[in-house]
Amino acid sequence: MPKRSIRIGMVGYQFMGKAHSHAYRDLNFFFEDLPVTPVLQAIAGRSEEPLRRAAEAYGFSSYETDWRRLVERDDIDVIDIVTPNNAHAEIAIAAAEHGKHVICEKPLAMTVDEAVRMRNAVQAAGVHHLVCHNYRYAPAVQFAKRLIDDGRLGRIYHVRAQYLQDWIMDPDFPLVWRLRKDVTGSGALGDIAAHILDLARFLVGEIGEVAACMETFIKERPLGEMAGGLEAKASGGTGRVDVDDAVAFLARFENGAMGVFEATRFAGGHRNGNQFEINGEKGSLRWNLEDMNWLEVYFHSDEPGLQGFRRINCTEPLHPYAERYWPAGHIIGYEHTFLNLFGAFFKGLVEDQPVKPDFEDGVRNQCVLEAVEKAAASRSWENVEYR
Amino acid sequence: MPKRSIRIGMVGYQFMGKAHSHAYRDLNFFFEDLPVTPVLQAIAGRSEEPLRRAAEAYGFSSYETDWRRLVERDDIDVIDIVTPNNAHAEIAIAAAEHGKHVICEKPLAMTVDEAVRMRNAVQAAGVHHLVCHNYRYAPAVQFAKRLIDDGRLGRIYHVRAQYLQDWIMDPDFPLVWRLRKDVTGSGALGDIAAHILDLARFLVGEIGEVAACMETFIKERPLGEMAGGLEAKASGGTGRVDVDDAVAFLARFENGAMGVFEATRFAGGHRNGNQFEINGEKGSLRWNLEDMNWLEVYFHSDEPGLQGFRRINCTEPLHPYAERYWPAGHIIGYEHTFLNLFGAFFKGLVEDQPVKPDFEDGVRNQCVLEAVEKAAASRSWENVEYR
Amino acid sequence: MPKRSIRIGMVGYQFMGKAHSHAYRDLNFFFEDLPVTPVLQAIAGRSEEPLRRAAEAYGFSSYETDWRRLVERDDIDVIDIVTPNNAHAEIAIAAAEHGKHVICEKPLAMTVDEAVRMRNAVQAAGVHHLVCHNYRYAPAVQFAKRLIDDGRLGRIYHVRAQYLQDWIMDPDFPLVWRLRKDVTGSGALGDIAAHILDLARFLVGEIGEVAACMETFIKERPLGEMAGGLEAKASGGTGRVDVDDAVAFLARFENGAMGVFEATRFAGGHRNGNQFEINGEKGSLRWNLEDMNWLEVYFHSDEPGLQGFRRINCTEPLHPYAERYWPAGHIIGYEHTFLNLFGAFFKGLVEDQPVKPDFEDGVRNQCVLEAVEKAAASRSWENVEYR
Amino acid sequence: MPKRSIRIGMVGYQFMGKAHSHAYRDLNFFFEDLPVTPVLQAIAGRSEEPLRRAAEAYGFSSYETDWRRLVERDDIDVIDIVTPNNAHAEIAIAAAEHGKHVICEKPLAMTVDEAVRMRNAVQAAGVHHLVCHNYRYAPAVQFAKRLIDDGRLGRIYHVRAQYLQDWIMDPDFPLVWRLRKDVTGSGALGDIAAHILDLARFLVGEIGEVAACMETFIKERPLGEMAGGLEAKASGGTGRVDVDDAVAFLARFENGAMGVFEATRFAGGHRNGNQFEINGEKGSLRWNLEDMNWLEVYFHSDEPGLQGFRRINCTEPLHPYAERYWPAGHIIGYEHTFLNLFGAFFKGLVEDQPVKPDFEDGVRNQCVLEAVEKAAASRSWENVEYR
Repeated sequence: MPKRSIRIGMVGYQFMGKAHSHAYRDLNFFFEDLPVTPVLQAIAGRSEEPLRRAAEAYGFSSYETDWRRLVERDDIDVIDIVTPNNAHAEIAIAAAEHGKHVICEKPLAMTVDEAVRMRNAVQAAGVHHLVCHNYRYAPAVQFAKRLIDDGRLGRIYHVRAQYLQDWIMDPDFPLVWRLRKDVTGSGALGDIAAHILDLARFLVGEIGEVAACMETFIKERPLGEMAGGLEAKASGGTGRVDVDDAVAFLARFENGAMGVFEATRFAGGHRNGNQFEINGEKGSLRWNLEDMNWLEVYFHSDEPGLQGFRRINCTEPLHPYAERYWPAGHIIGYEHTFLNLFGAFFKGLVEDQPVKPDFEDGVRNQCVLEAVEKAAASRSWENVEYR
Repeated sequence: MPKRSIRIGMVGYQFMGKAHSHAYRDLNFFFEDLPVTPVLQAIAGRSEEPLRRAAEAYGFSSYETDWRRLVERDDIDVIDIVTPNNAHAEIAIAAAEHGKHVICEKPLAMTVDEAVRMRNAVQAAGVHHLVCHNYRYAPAVQFAKRLIDDGRLGRIYHVRAQYLQDWIMDPDFPLVWRLRKDVTGSGALGDIAAHILDLARFLVGEIGEVAACMETFIKERPLGEMAGGLEAKASGGTGRVDVDDAVAFLARFENGAMGVFEATRFAGGHRNGNQFEINGEKGSLRWNLEDMNWLEVYFHSDEPGLQGFRRINCTEPLHPYAERYWPAGHIIGYEHTFLNLFGAFFKGLVEDQPVKPDFEDGVRNQCVLEAVEKAAASRSWENVEYR
Repeated sequence: MPKRSIRIGMVGYQFMGKAHSHAYRDLNFFFEDLPVTPVLQAIAGRSEEPLRRAAEAYGFSSYETDWRRLVERDDIDVIDIVTPNNAHAEIAIAAAEHGKHVICEKPLAMTVDEAVRMRNAVQAAGVHHLVCHNYRYAPAVQFAKRLIDDGRLGRIYHVRAQYLQDWIMDPDFPLVWRLRKDVTGSGALGDIAAHILDLARFLVGEIGEVAACMETFIKERPLGEMAGGLEAKASGGTGRVDVDDAVAFLARFENGAMGVFEATRFAGGHRNGNQFEINGEKGSLRWNLEDMNWLEVYFHSDEPGLQGFRRINCTEPLHPYAERYWPAGHIIGYEHTFLNLFGAFFKGLVEDQPVKPDFEDGVRNQCVLEAVEKAAASRSWENVEYR
Repeated sequence: MPKRSIRIGMVGYQFMGKAHSHAYRDLNFFFEDLPVTPVLQAIAGRSEEPLRRAAEAYGFSSYETDWRRLVERDDIDVIDIVTPNNAHAEIAIAAAEHGKHVICEKPLAMTVDEAVRMRNAVQAAGVHHLVCHNYRYAPAVQFAKRLIDDGRLGRIYHVRAQYLQDWIMDPDFPLVWRLRKDVTGSGALGDIAAHILDLARFLVGEIGEVAACMETFIKERPLGEMAGGLEAKASGGTGRVDVDDAVAFLARFENGAMGVFEATRFAGGHRNGNQFEINGEKGSLRWNLEDMNWLEVYFHSDEPGLQGFRRINCTEPLHPYAERYWPAGHIIGYEHTFLNLFGAFFKGLVEDQPVKPDFEDGVRNQCVLEAVEKAAASRSWENVEYR
């Protein structure tokens, strides 16, 4: 089957660049039916040498040391933004103005204002847009969504979600860009609370109001930079940490559910503990990214005496996306969330159908994040102002 | 070894009456070294027939249909209050005034005012006093306390605690006394949030301020009453539920730790899920009442590559209280928390040493509960006003 | 309700003496409906001082330094044998001949011959008899039995059971009586393999043939003795270990199921890991003593996509024995298996109905143990010769 | 970095063909440092149409409907055999004779004779050879190996390993080639017991003797064929199942360790439960393929009171192969075991160093499998005759 080539231009090349590139390359193997071939056309960054190495490692045919040239190129269909957060808006808007479809890492922007401008730009340009809340696309999460949408949990009472990490607990861990407000906007809030928030919005619905607190436990750190993944190296001197190490917030969903959220980089023993539990009138669900193939499900309607959480390995042919991979019990991993996400996006692109999560989701996520910050500052519940 | 008899007068006789009575009877078997024999002298209640049956079932020598006669009796050393909450204060104060030591179920009172009057009464009378936050006395929790006090976790960053139950999720479950504000003061808040709060105070320290929300999901229920344990039967008609089904709150501890608390009776699949996790600079701890013999512990100082939560069965001779029971790996259960609690209390009594948790703890717990209610109403963070 | 007194005479007083005594004392509290009161009449042993202390600690009214006097006493109804294994047969037979009902710890005897003589003696005397395979009486195990008997698993294909301990892994752990063939008959085989064998017989049926291996990893140990529970102290010199540290065997059940059994005292990290899994044509079950309140159950008939092991807390009113204790989610422990076992035995006694596991079970268990030893020696499959 | 192309010719194209093809394609992305590029040169099979589709799906440049032409082609460096077992020997020997390196799926052969001829052929030809016991290359298993080799467990006492599946429990599941002796040689034995055997040999050492039993629970099935993965479809009529549904065996390792092994396709609830536990004098390890990123480790030397199995997520940079993928806590899946396996093989190939598991491992594995069959038939322990 001849496939339509979709030429990707990526801006940025660190951890997320690796994850996206891999997904593009691996996509056709598992999504044979997708009438699209992603082509790694060009990658952009500022420093030529690491950029050249990234292009080679990831398999891009060319590179640009100025992202502006990338968005102007005629041979690019999609701009994929995996830069630090402070560059998202300018690139995305320029890309849209040049008629490119836009994929952007989360959080969509530094502020709601930025996010709104981005959304308006892609909508005005009529291009497709995607914000990379990839965890929605874990098969177990997709299956949870199906169960909830089918009414299997009934009215939702509770959402409790935590994103627990521990990679910066060492006070000598340096002040990398992810800890600098001017580059990243916020700390645990935008980096990981944004993920559990997106999962909650996806599964349960919109949030109406929040109360919150934020904390920076280690206020001064050695200067330094990311060395790849979540690793870092020091570079001399110290600086003030101006983003949150941890954030917690209470939420009221518009449908009446209560939410309790917590995101922290100071939960020792949790390398990447993105976990949630949802309780509804008919049952409950729980999930943890570190065991991402499993969904635990409880049904009140189970025979009395035989009620208990079932631990389900979501790798059977009838679980979402599972049939594309391996037989039941042969698990998949982190990277497959991106394959599924991009598989859905490209399908939407060729069919000209909108795919979620899009920039509208990015805006709404940002609105909640901003309400959380506002509530932490005002020491009061704050309504989420959607724009 | 001749033992001193401590004559118990108990007021109330439902689920908690059973748990306390059993512990008194079973105590000497496991606490051979304790120079005290609890004697089940008398039990008080209003309805003679169930009272007589309870006296026989629990092994009390006599009964009184008016608790006032009980507190006046010369042959009673300790008054143990296991009534609904609205009777705690009057009985405790009268008992103290008659020179009786006082054991009281939690929450100590309906209001901070009541709790303060109770504490003042026992202090003025110079009697011993105990509030039954029995979960402190699970061996794994005592062991957690020892680890924290020994500095094994270092500075505490996070406490997250949930008390998840599901026994009233059925909308047809009747409006028993535990759901009536005039009898119980509050719902999940005083009944189960009080427990996780006590564990947090015990393990981490005092709370300075809170933000909260409370919810009643099912607002009208059939009238009815408790039939024993957590069972109930309907008795015709319906009534308004005026207590909370669920409560969640954020907290700041005085030592800077962040707390996230949630208590609900609407978490399907959790019969009695009293669970917490604590993250400190050197490690983490987690525990769940339904697996109460286990403590999970993580240490940052473990050899790199070999770091992970250890699942420890706290039944070895060197674990607190464990040697009194069975060899390692032979687990104990819910009832043993009361044996340990009363063992500690009676030891304090004969040595005339204070034992925790006492009415001061009851007051402080109540102060936090009241701040939570206030914060839920004001929609703002509220300082906890300790009295 | 007036109850019939059943006067207990116990022979032996170590760990099992403590467990039995506690159960007798605690029984009426939870088994109110049982028309029997066990009375701790007398305890027998050889050394007066520890015997006197045991009598006091456990609550026996009197003691005898010769068990023969005990079995002759008119004021004893039941002889309970908790001695090392080499004394079981003589005491049990004498007790039966004096018309006493007999309770005996497991394994019933040192050899099949002994076991058969014991069974014949109690049958000839027409007394009630019980062998203390107490784990049958964990509520989760009783519930497993009910599910299997109700056909919920269908035809049974597989039983795999392990009893994993680690208390003698230290080569300096002394040569206590449990490691001496003349006192105990065998090592892991009779002590713990006997337990998983009994569970398998109870749940699945009789075993027809076995293949086996046995091993003694540490062949020489310091001399010493039990100090209580599973603790020990050295007493100078060394001796040869002539019992097995570990045993493994394959089995064919008469109904065609395959069995794989393993019992060892050299499985580091398992204090008391008595665990089994059973796979049938319609589903599976698994259980572990260290988490004894939980039963994991899998049903093929569950809706596709929602199939997984359910983790069931067997503490609900409809679980066997659970209603006697505490509300759902309030777990019980090791000691309660003895309460349930003795509750069943005394009920049978007053109703003059046989109760399992009895000496016939003890004989059958011993026949399998003997076949295992024979198969380990012959290096061939051996039929189990039931007698 | 210019890379040497290694041109792959694959024979067969079902489930394993997909897994291998994917690994070849994905290899360079994660093994940047590997100076080799696998090139999917040609694929061989008998039926042209499915073969053509497989070539397209997997990305092979050409195909051959006769594998003999494939092994004769000059433009092929490696022959990769993913056919049913009955074709392994002839293809592998022919490939070696044509000077091709050979990769072969497990079990290596139908019989020891075949396996020996295959090993002799590759040795005589001086080509590289690999048998695809891919589970050795799960990072957690490689880490277990490192711990054992470093003496962290000391002398090994016990290995217990199960491979539990449930895909043919339905009696109506058809008689696919994996259930036909003429095509596959044996059932659970060669298909899955071979895997746990290889893990045990890798981690603990060689096996000296075995006792065994084998069973076919469902003896007649509808005729049918594999439809991909572990799915199947019926094609009319029925046939006799002449391979084992389940096998269990006891083993003595040459180093004195006891082994207990079980492999079955009738363990309901286990889709792909390849699991083992190893107990040594200093500690224990356990692992399960369905949670393959985790290794549970117990050390006796841990501080008393703090001893327990640690659950370690083997995704940190210092865990074997983990750094190639994602940051800590971002798990990998089944397919990555093949990437690691092939990465090691190609590294060995370019450095001309032997890499394990090779055909010698295949022979030894087959020798144990044959001893197991012999022992099941003889109903006696049988020595493993290595050839």
